[in-house]
Amino acid sequence: MKSKFPGEDHLYLQVAEGVEKMIGDDILRIGDKLPSVRVLSKEHGISMGTAFQAYYHLEGKGLIESRPKSGYYVRFNPRRFADLPKKMDPVVTPVEKVTNQDMIMQMIKTMTAEDIMNFALASPSVNLLPAARLSKSVVHALRNDPHQCLQYEHAQGNPELRKQIARLSFNWGGKVKPDEVIITSGCMEAVVMALRSVTHAGDTIAVECPSYFGIYQVIESLGLKLIEIPADPVTGIDLDGLERAIGKHSIAACLLVPNFSNPSGSCMPDEHKQRLVQMLTKHQVPLIEDDIYGEMYFGRQRPRTCKYFDKEGIVLYCSSLSKSLAPGYRIGWILPGRYMDKVSSIKMMHSISCATITQQALAHFLGIGRYEYHLKNLRKALHTQCLRYTQAIMQYFPEETRISRPQGGFVLWVELSKHINTYELWLEAMKHQISIAPGSIFSNSANYSHYMRIGYGKPWDDKVDKGLKTLGNLVRKMS
Amino acid sequence: MKSKFPGEDHLYLQVAEGVEKMIGDDILRIGDKLPSVRVLSKEHGISMGTAFQAYYHLEGKGLIESRPKSGYYVRFNPRRFADLPKKMDPVVTPVEKVTNQDMIMQMIKTMTAEDIMNFALASPSVNLLPAARLSKSVVHALRNDPHQCLQYEHAQGNPELRKQIARLSFNWGGKVKPDEVIITSGCMEAVVMALRSVTHAGDTIAVECPSYFGIYQVIESLGLKLIEIPADPVTGIDLDGLERAIGKHSIAACLLVPNFSNPSGSCMPDEHKQRLVQMLTKHQVPLIEDDIYGEMYFGRQRPRTCKYFDKEGIVLYCSSLSKSLAPGYRIGWILPGRYMDKVSSIKMMHSISCATITQQALAHFLGIGRYEYHLKNLRKALHTQCLRYTQAIMQYFPEETRISRPQGGFVLWVELSKHINTYELWLEAMKHQISIAPGSIFSNSANYSHYMRIGYGKPWDDKVDKGLKTLGNLVRKMS
Repeated sequence: MKSKFPGEDHLYLQVAEGVEKMIGDDILRIGDKLPSVRVLSKEHGISMGTAFQAYYHLEGKGLIESRPKSGYYVRFNPRRFADLPKKMDPVVTPVEKVTNQDMIMQMIKTMTAEDIMNFALASPSVNLLPAARLSKSVVHALRNDPHQCLQYEHAQGNPELRKQIARLSFNWGGKVKPDEVIITSGCMEAVVMALRSVTHAGDTIAVECPSYFGIYQVIESLGLKLIEIPADPVTGIDLDGLERAIGKHSIAACLLVPNFSNPSGSCMPDEHKQRLVQMLTKHQVPLIEDDIYGEMYFGRQRPRTCKYFDKEGIVLYCSSLSKSLAPGYRIGWILPGRYMDKVSSIKMMHSISCATITQQALAHFLGIGRYEYHLKNLRKALHTQCLRYTQAIMQYFPEETRISRPQGGFVLWVELSKHINTYELWLEAMKHQISIAPGSIFSNSANYSHYMRIGYGKPWDDKVDKGLKTLGNLVRKMS
Repeated sequence: MKSKFPGEDHLYLQVAEGVEKMIGDDILRIGDKLPSVRVLSKEHGISMGTAFQAYYHLEGKGLIESRPKSGYYVRFNPRRFADLPKKMDPVVTPVEKVTNQDMIMQMIKTMTAEDIMNFALASPSVNLLPAARLSKSVVHALRNDPHQCLQYEHAQGNPELRKQIARLSFNWGGKVKPDEVIITSGCMEAVVMALRSVTHAGDTIAVECPSYFGIYQVIESLGLKLIEIPADPVTGIDLDGLERAIGKHSIAACLLVPNFSNPSGSCMPDEHKQRLVQMLTKHQVPLIEDDIYGEMYFGRQRPRTCKYFDKEGIVLYCSSLSKSLAPGYRIGWILPGRYMDKVSSIKMMHSISCATITQQALAHFLGIGRYEYHLKNLRKALHTQCLRYTQAIMQYFPEETRISRPQGGFVLWVELSKHINTYELWLEAMKHQISIAPGSIFSNSANYSHYMRIGYGKPWDDKVDKGLKTLGNLVRKMS
């Protein structure tokens, strides 16, 4: 369940993992007293300090709690989650009007507000990011570039940064060359350029349902039509459903978030990815793969990508550093496969190049190995936060509440009782300075009006606890 | 003719201007000996140092020269230019295939090469830009932002930067509010968003002929059609021609560079701008005004913009700091008038926001008044370079060569003998590590194959002189 980095695990993490497994296997049950720190240290032949660290780590995840003058007790079993949200059946025919534009715009206006408890975000709290280290890389770039980063960068992107991005692909087994990478202004520009490269106005795009509202907006703004394919809350898009849609309609491209989809948190198993790519290759339908959350996995290994299984270059792989490192730097990339020339000329025509300074700074930061180091900490923090938020929702919300079990990413997908309209809940919550993302904006045709997305990017603290408690109370009142 | 900043002129500039006027009025003729520095200082009651500075300034512009042990002599009359390039008549019907894409891509590949004498660029040499001061503003931004510029900036752009951009509009008489500004990734993104906001695929856009090749590329890539309207080399687009085209065809928008058009260097007189805006308002045709060169004027006053005459919000004004301050920062803006909501939502959907750090750094740089100061120096330098390059072309090229007389901007538009194909000239010149922009890429239908664009953004020196001499020799050989 928990993150482990082979060959690099700290002793305390190994011990903590052992305890966590015993809780998961119901050997230690909720309420059971744990061995004292002294006993734990003797049992494992570790120092008192290491034993304490192990308990401290488990406490952070909310799995155990310390009771004053009494010791440590089991608090939560990570395998005893709430039920999963249900799979919905959207209307599988092409449609043109694809967004709840008004509701989205209304919500987005409050997104950057700083004085609210913002559960509507799907991004990390800024204090999880290595701000000081990144600033050093900016200063390094200014000092080492002969023109102090004033000149245009190559349209395709800074060569050193492209080398680093190519290296990152090792994490999912990729063998990408720097020449196959185009740097973009974040992942969204990559997705837009991919869509522009493989579609024309009036074409139909297949997406999974639910999908990120920004994807619906972009599809609408490019004059494209949309087919929503049902998706499983754990394994992602329904491949049979997709194949039927391809057989029935002319589909110009498929746009998916295979790893830790937003909002459902689903992650396609490798064999699904392989089958998907084979199917799309057979039908010659390009796949736009949005892998923006791929590095934020909680398990032992980074999930593979669809690009990994792509033999003929039909996958346009898009990602960025906006969710994992530096949102405000606006740096993403695309590996456009066989559409390289098309994407590359669109990039050059439409925005010439990305900012030189942020590209050079990130090339430096990645080049000295700080990104891998940072990601390890970020993954741990997010996993912990995911568990704490889940526990709080289970505690404060009505019993029928269903919650997703993401294995990575930033969000929980929460299904409430059918009677509750989460847009009304949002209006109500905003009176208490709390924001959520109402479910209706994540689909065009499926009825997610009693769903909501809760982002857990903010580290757990009393304010978060209080916010979720208030939200739970509001839900109970509306029930 | 020359730049003057009311109330701020240095004494030496006033004296130099007097001498320049006498040369222009043929009171002092080419070859005439000028009074000695001592006499000049006595005549004007100025110090020897100031008198020397005045001559030094005129020498920099190539108007006078010092002969060793003899004194200063008149070298060039700024009013005796070569003939202007001829106005061409493009085909005024909508067309779809609008670019010489292959030729453009071939040329662009050599654009960033550093080991060549690159007359193909329309931008300032980096050593004309205040690199060190800008770096200080970057460091200031990092230190003063609570999140060290890591967070997303507002989709509309940094509020302080928008305030500074609004202030910049004072220069052309504008009364722009910060809320009316959207920050973009350079001017090209602004133009693309403007086009996307007011057109659909298949619509027809009117442009002046010749126009910047990037504009043709963007129009083609958005699936738009094109009508080229003839333009005068001095006063810009032919308004009667435009009105006839509007009467005859359905035109979705008009896209112009009214100030120092690229490549012709033409600048629409104020009364033309006013008539244009009235005409387009009457016909309800939106005007996309690309004013990227507007601040680089050589005269006494910044030319007005079409936006200035816009009563009903039909002008989408686009500009940037890429040509005047920081190309690699990728910061531009759009004042979308009545299309605010549309442009604003496209910006948010397609690229979320621009880089935080470059926005904050430029907000600081502009806020402390460094931009105005820098612009004064830049304008002087460009005017001088424009004159030196013109003189060299007159000296080294065949007599029939016609040259534009830009009152601002970065480029000369040069017409050679009809027999000369400037694409072949470019191929030949590249063997000598010299690049030019061949005329054919600046129109779809008019035959500019014997024209070329020469950028004078690089300060005058022996290498530039040698480069133009070599180019002149190649042209003579081809004649």
